[in-house]
Amino acid sequence: MQNMSDITNTTICAISTPSGQGGIAVIRVSGPEAFIICEKIFKPASEGKTISKQNPFTMNYGQIIKDDSVLDEVLVTVFHQPHSYTGEDLVEISCHGSLYIQHVILKLLLEKGCRLARHGEFTQRAFLNGKMDLSQAEAVADVIASSSEASHRLAMNQMRGGFSKELKNLRSQLLNFVSLIELELDFSEEDIEFADRNQLLRLADEIEAIISRLVNSFDAGNALKHGIPVVIVGETNAGKSTLLNLLLNEDKAIVSEIHGTTRDAIEDIINIHGITFRFIDTAGIRSTTDEVEKMSINRTFRKIDQASIIIWMIDTTHFNKEIEYIADKIIPKTRSKKLIIVLNKIDKISQEEQQILEEEFLPDVPAERIYLSAKYKKNTEKLENALLKAANLPDFNNDDIIVTNIRHYEALTKALESIERVQNGLKTNLSGDFIAQDIRECMHYLGEISGEITTDEVLGNIFGKFCIGK
Amino acid sequence: MQNMSDITNTTICAISTPSGQGGIAVIRVSGPEAFIICEKIFKPASEGKTISKQNPFTMNYGQIIKDDSVLDEVLVTVFHQPHSYTGEDLVEISCHGSLYIQHVILKLLLEKGCRLARHGEFTQRAFLNGKMDLSQAEAVADVIASSSEASHRLAMNQMRGGFSKELKNLRSQLLNFVSLIELELDFSEEDIEFADRNQLLRLADEIEAIISRLVNSFDAGNALKHGIPVVIVGETNAGKSTLLNLLLNEDKAIVSEIHGTTRDAIEDIINIHGITFRFIDTAGIRSTTDEVEKMSINRTFRKIDQASIIIWMIDTTHFNKEIEYIADKIIPKTRSKKLIIVLNKIDKISQEEQQILEEEFLPDVPAERIYLSAKYKKNTEKLENALLKAANLPDFNNDDIIVTNIRHYEALTKALESIERVQNGLKTNLSGDFIAQDIRECMHYLGEISGEITTDEVLGNIFGKFCIGK
Repeated sequence: MQNMSDITNTTICAISTPSGQGGIAVIRVSGPEAFIICEKIFKPASEGKTISKQNPFTMNYGQIIKDDSVLDEVLVTVFHQPHSYTGEDLVEISCHGSLYIQHVILKLLLEKGCRLARHGEFTQRAFLNGKMDLSQAEAVADVIASSSEASHRLAMNQMRGGFSKELKNLRSQLLNFVSLIELELDFSEEDIEFADRNQLLRLADEIEAIISRLVNSFDAGNALKHGIPVVIVGETNAGKSTLLNLLLNEDKAIVSEIHGTTRDAIEDIINIHGITFRFIDTAGIRSTTDEVEKMSINRTFRKIDQASIIIWMIDTTHFNKEIEYIADKIIPKTRSKKLIIVLNKIDKISQEEQQILEEEFLPDVPAERIYLSAKYKKNTEKLENALLKAANLPDFNNDDIIVTNIRHYEALTKALESIERVQNGLKTNLSGDFIAQDIRECMHYLGEISGEITTDEVLGNIFGKFCIGK
Repeated sequence: MQNMSDITNTTICAISTPSGQGGIAVIRVSGPEAFIICEKIFKPASEGKTISKQNPFTMNYGQIIKDDSVLDEVLVTVFHQPHSYTGEDLVEISCHGSLYIQHVILKLLLEKGCRLARHGEFTQRAFLNGKMDLSQAEAVADVIASSSEASHRLAMNQMRGGFSKELKNLRSQLLNFVSLIELELDFSEEDIEFADRNQLLRLADEIEAIISRLVNSFDAGNALKHGIPVVIVGETNAGKSTLLNLLLNEDKAIVSEIHGTTRDAIEDIINIHGITFRFIDTAGIRSTTDEVEKMSINRTFRKIDQASIIIWMIDTTHFNKEIEYIADKIIPKTRSKKLIIVLNKIDKISQEEQQILEEEFLPDVPAERIYLSAKYKKNTEKLENALLKAANLPDFNNDDIIVTNIRHYEALTKALESIERVQNGLKTNLSGDFIAQDIRECMHYLGEISGEITTDEVLGNIFGKFCIGK
């Protein structure tokens, strides 16, 4: 783990733009010697405009000098502490985006006294310098990693302090609460009641309701952040890849058009109206006596447990006894999961056959049926709507606080347990000592989220997951 | 090809930082409506600091707004024409480096009236607005693509206008030259000689010497820019990959440390003291009667022609008749190419065996021998020095003009032919009309390089090779 004094005494640098070659790249330098170090390698175009004499927030043109010759022509922006991202003196060097230039500037900075920034160290310094609380700092990484409208919105709200404000409110309510009880304890021998127990219980109920709502938002928050897990089950060749391609084509065109993103990388992540669906890869199912293949098929059925939506694909030109076998496996799961039945190649069978299929083979499951075929290509939209409906996400407002972070969820769960003990204590007329302790415990867990109470280990875990340069 | 009026009338946008996810990303907007369009999506933190009212070169904090909610918190820098990279009004939006945010900001800009920039269009606009000449614009792409100290230095010199200045000098000399001759023509009936023919010849000689030096610098310039081609020839298992790994380890550690560059991508490009060597992949050679394998071996020998340096690797524990076979193929090539003989596993054979190898098998080739083995690992440095020596690059000063661009080389070659015709014309007392025409032709070719004379097609070719966003 990083040492706290090291963090405040050293000056760090890193490439903050995505790694690779591009038009321009930005290198960030932050710390007490940021100006001094940058002055050693930067020659301003207008004399006298050395880094430390530059106006803050102003881009200045000049050269990076290496061995007395010009390495690059750059724009340098200076931020004076505390008015910077990190809260420290900070310099941003905007250079040509060649890998060579980026490396050499970084090497020059290291030579002149910088240290390479650790993962997330710029944001960690921002947190340590009070520029943001811990939940906001965590949201910075989420903002950068967000790939859908919904996950982006949640992360952005959190980064902008929506959650922090809610936590602050709760902690101040709890502090007020505990003060009343502790005051009562101080005067306990005089038998004065400072707070009406019923009134206290109402306060506890209110706090419990808020924490409880936050805890309950996690399922949806987690689904929005990481994508809603979907599994496609069906016989081999039922058309799983056709289905995925249909959904992908809608989604990918824009992404790859702008960024040349390889499709492989995002193969099974599909965004529908801003919501991410994560398709879990499974093997096709077919009648077999082969033991190895049986194992693979069982694995497919086990993967259903990871999903919250099951798409059951049926090749209508090929239905047979297998359907009953699959139905037996799937139906029991539909108690806790949503099922969508996709009937493929429907244009290749007769009305009669379709009727037989629906009435005799397909069990009476309360699941939406989507017809698909070369002809019914346009039903993609229907499938998308079915997926959105199955996702069953509550209707959030832009300002709603949704918990998306497992660390927050765990702390909130513990805070909920504490406040529930407070509620019970008040109801059973427990001694004020115990109630006060439970309230303090509840505050402690909320403080863990905002970082008022934290350890080096917790910080190490959080910032270790960041990219370097942020 | 792009339409010139389109280029000056439209406002373009692009992501200028490398593509992908990172701490921050920069989106550039340039053109007559840059400010108006950006104002539609940017809400400044301090009221009244709208884009067009911002101080130029100053970073301003604010929000990108999408559908009435905050998409991102960004820093926006404004550049007023002509004081910008493109010479037009230009806005740089520095946002969080999430792919989602980058895409959505780009989409918003397109919705509000921008067009996606074409490859190199920012630089093309800089050229069209007279911010740089064509050879400087071309150097921008070279600067970004440079991966070694030498290629970087050449591109940087060219971008900073070293070559442009030389061209300008030449053209002004030629203009003076042609003026004298044309003046003489105007007064030809009066039989006045304005210029002493000998003096004119000296001027032509001087110009010819400069152009000739530029033409001759191309071989070295090309090698420095694209890397010096090296081929390793040897029997299968002679240790080719060991050799490459030895050289690579020295070079790669730094690169991958900083950037997580995959080794695959730069497998056969090795930088030695700032010079790039490009290793051409070849199959190992072994005694065979198999016709297919024979073909592959012949292909290896043919690849020697692409190289300027041959490394002949010999497994000393394994030498046999093959050596003579390979020698027969290689020796004739050494007239025009440099040969380095690498003797591998030298510690595994006796002194006696080594003597037999050197005297009986290895022909009397004037080639440096490098001994290599697990023991002699340190000889990597010797091999590197041998490669640098074999590269035989002239000693350039930082300010020397080196031609690295084939388009420039071709134009210079034609300019050289023209000026040679001028020299001959003067010597053979050719009529002034013809001499003037040749001088004008020489000027024309030099003007092609700087872009004073150009066509849409030429521009299309040049900027089409740029990345988008530059």
